[in-house]
Order: sequence, then structure tokens, then C-alpha cells
Amino acid sequence: MKVAAGKIVIIGAGNVATQLGKALKKANYTIIQIYSKSIYSASTLAKYFNCAHTNHIENIDSSADLYIIAVKDDAIIDIVKKIRLTDKIIVHTSGTVEMNVLKPVSINIGVLYPLQTFTKSRILNFKTIPICLEANNTSTYKTLLLISKSISNNVQKINSNQRKKIHLAAIFANNFTNHLFTISASILKSANLSLDILKPLILETVRKINTTDPNDNQTGPAIRNDKKTMDTHLKMLINNKDYFQLYKLISKSIKTTKKNIYLD
Amino acid sequence: MKVAAGKIVIIGAGNVATQLGKALKKANYTIIQIYSKSIYSASTLAKYFNCAHTNHIENIDSSADLYIIAVKDDAIIDIVKKIRLTDKIIVHTSGTVEMNVLKPVSINIGVLYPLQTFTKSRILNFKTIPICLEANNTSTYKTLLLISKSISNNVQKINSNQRKKIHLAAIFANNFTNHLFTISASILKSANLSLDILKPLILETVRKINTTDPNDNQTGPAIRNDKKTMDTHLKMLINNKDYFQLYKLISKSIKTTKKNIYLD
Repeated sequence: MKVAAGKIVIIGAGNVATQLGKALKKANYTIIQIYSKSIYSASTLAKYFNCAHTNHIENIDSSADLYIIAVKDDAIIDIVKKIRLTDKIIVHTSGTVEMNVLKPVSINIGVLYPLQTFTKSRILNFKTIPICLEANNTSTYKTLLLISKSISNNVQKINSNQRKKIHLAAIFANNFTNHLFTISASILKSANLSLDILKPLILETVRKINTTDPNDNQTGPAIRNDKKTMDTHLKMLINNKDYFQLYKLISKSIKTTKKNIYLD
Repeated sequence: MKVAAGKIVIIGAGNVATQLGKALKKANYTIIQIYSKSIYSASTLAKYFNCAHTNHIENIDSSADLYIIAVKDDAIIDIVKKIRLTDKIIVHTSGTVEMNVLKPVSINIGVLYPLQTFTKSRILNFKTIPICLEANNTSTYKTLLLISKSISNNVQKINSNQRKKIHLAAIFANNFTNHLFTISASILKSANLSLDILKPLILETVRKINTTDPNDNQTGPAIRNDKKTMDTHLKMLINNKDYFQLYKLISKSIKTTKKNIYLD
């Protein structure tokens, strides 16, 4: 055992459970059991860790040191209702759920939120993934810090309020950005072209934020208030109401953000 | 002279003129003159190329083989009104302007549109930048192709209609994406955090589109129709009308795009 928490039970068998479990195994922690509502998912992931599995929450192994709840936000509260672990450390991995929902389960609670977009099959370098860490007391925090540092080089102390804001910011930077790529691809498709032609531009867009504040990098017709170009673009989008409205609204937001940079 | 077009006049001294000129110089073309409305900008860039400069359009050197108009879209038509070059090759570098606006100037016209976001001072690897090429006849196209291939490994034949769509797609993938980064940064700032914490996530968002269609990569509350999380987020954005509306509209667009992927 590297630290006090050497034996781990993972509650969940989805993308986060899979990727986090793999990283912990690589750091020599022992996953002793996987729980999932789906017996198939539980046994599939358990096979990878060569460990036990269950789809009955009352059969959760009580001998572990750390319990990680990695299920959908709405399902966390159902789990909390059904398990009691006295003083074992229990964490969830959600960006939006308060740490304190775990209070009924144990006196030692926390949040271990890995800030990344996960897909089961993708090979990720966990070392570069920021882990946002929170705990309700110092000794729990220290244990979680040790474990987190063994899987990531970027562990940060983040409270529930900050974590909520990080999650919201991530929706804009990941979910919404990806949707803009989808729109780009659909426009290109209508001209018999693929998104490939834009990839060097997309890479440069991201590279620029490493050296400059994105608000200072803003280019294009909206920031220049080039109405002629914006009108031409809106005409091209006339057959897709959502894309038309989005073009108008983002352009407006670019113009007003210039004056009013910060949210609060 | 590597090709028929060895001597080049650049009309414009902004970001595109600067970066394209530097790439052409590196490929051993001779920039013989820089024109800019601003004598200061003209002379500054001309110094780099060790060539002549002017701020009088009627003094444009008529001995060049290729003339590149790299000015703002609205200014192209003013240039066209004032120069006549018979059979010299003249191109512009705009994503949105029709090739045919150059017709009054010469019988050999084209477009050389480098698909990238340019900043004067940034060092760019031009070899990876896609060049969208168009010409009104085969011999002009061949000459422009040779020149373009000497500065980029990614030259594509693109007509005016396609180029317009590429430009619109680029607004979504670059300008609008960058604005989303600005919004992210402002949300993080309100929690005393910087955009740094999201950079691994942003990089992974971009990496994913190299292997998967972005529409298949879509994650987050909107695609899951997780109303509770979306409501929480909207409440957090209540003090910024633009960001609030944007969150609503992009989420709606993510939901409807699932059914209706393509623009046309």
C-alpha cells in the first residue's frame, strides 16, 4: 500500500470510472470491486482489474479504504441514500454536485473531479489532466492529495463553488466549441469539402491562447463591425434558423464583450 | 526566376501581406515593391524586403509578373478602380470577395486565399497553411499553383462559391470558438481562476476531431437533455444577458443538430 487508501471500490463503470480506474491501477492502487446497475458493465470493467463486481449496492465491499462514486450526477443521490461507510473516505467525481451531498455516507468526504472529456476507449495521458480536489477535513484532503498526485501532475485545491464555475466554463470551452466544429463541418459539407481544410486554423486558434488572452486574439467581421460581410454570411445561413440565430448572437456578444469583459 | 512570376508587387502591408510576403521571400521570390495607403506601413514592410515602396497607387511598378492585393475586403474595389495591368497576373487574398471583381485590371486573374488567422509578429509555419487557389484560365492557374506549392504543402483548387463557404465555416471554427474561450476565461476569472486549468480539455477537444466527426464527439448536458444541470448553469449566467442567451441557443442547437446534421 502506498498510502492509507490502498484498496479502492469504484461505484460506476462508465467513461470516468474506466479512465480513472486505469490510472489508479497504473499507480499501483488495488481496485477491489466495481459496482454498476448494469451487471454487464460491472463485470466487463471488473475483468480489466481482475477484481470482484456487483450490481447490488447493498453488496458493496466494506473493507476498502476509498470509495469513488463515478456515476451520472442524478444517480449520485440514489447511491448516497443506500450506503453507509462510517469513516471510510468517499468521493464523487462530478463537476456540478456539492461535496456535502455525501455527508450521510461518512465523516470523511471529498470530491475528485478530473477536468477532461472522457471516452471509454480513448488512450489518455492522465498525468496532464487537472484534478480538482476538495475534502471536508485536513487528513482526508492529505490522503486524496497523495492519491491524486500519483496519477496527475496537475492537482488543484478547488472548492464546490469554484468547481461549479469551472464546469460551466468547460461547457463553453469543450461542449459548445465542439458544436461550432459540427456547424463548420456541415457548412463545408454543403460545398463538398471536409473539416480537414480548417484543421490548421483550429490548431492555431488554440495555440494562440497559450500566449495571449483570447479576448485580445479576437479577429473577424464582428470585432471589426464589418456589417457587409456579416450580412453576406447571414444570407448564407437563412435556411438554418439555429445557425442563423447563433451567428447573430455570437457576433453581438463579441461586440459587447469588448466593453464588458468579465462576468461578475 | 523560378517560374514566370518571379517579381512580385504586394498591395497592402497588413498581417496577410506581411506573412505571405515573408513566405514568398523565403521561397526565393523577389518582392520589388510594397504599396500601402500608409507610407509608414509601406516603408516598414519594404525595409524587410529591401525593396521600393509607395503610398500612391498610380506609382505601382508595372514591371512585376505577379500583383498580390492583400488589403481589407472593402478596399479591394478601390484598388481595382485605379490600376490597369493588361495581362499581368493579379490575385487577391480574400475569403469572401469574388474573383471576378478583378476583371477590369487584367485578363489573368485569380485568388490566393491562405486559410489562417494572421498576426504580424507571430512566427507561422506557412508550409502547413492551406492555400485555396482559383484562376480564370489554365496558364494563370498553373503559374499560381507553382508559386503556392513553393510556400505551402497544402494547395487546393477552390472556386469562389466554395471559398465563401470555407470563410463562413472558418468564422465558426476560429472567431466564434475564440469568443467561447473568452467567455470561459471570464467565468473562471469570477472564481479567481485562469483559463490555464481548461487548456488540457481544450487541446483534447481539438485532438478528438482528428479521429472522429465532431457531431459524434458531442458530450455535455445539452446532448443528454440534462435539464437540471442546464437550469443551474442558466441561473449562474443570469447577470450576463448575452452569455445567458448564448448558453440557451447553443444548447438548443446541439439538441436539434442531432436530427438535422447538414446545412443544405
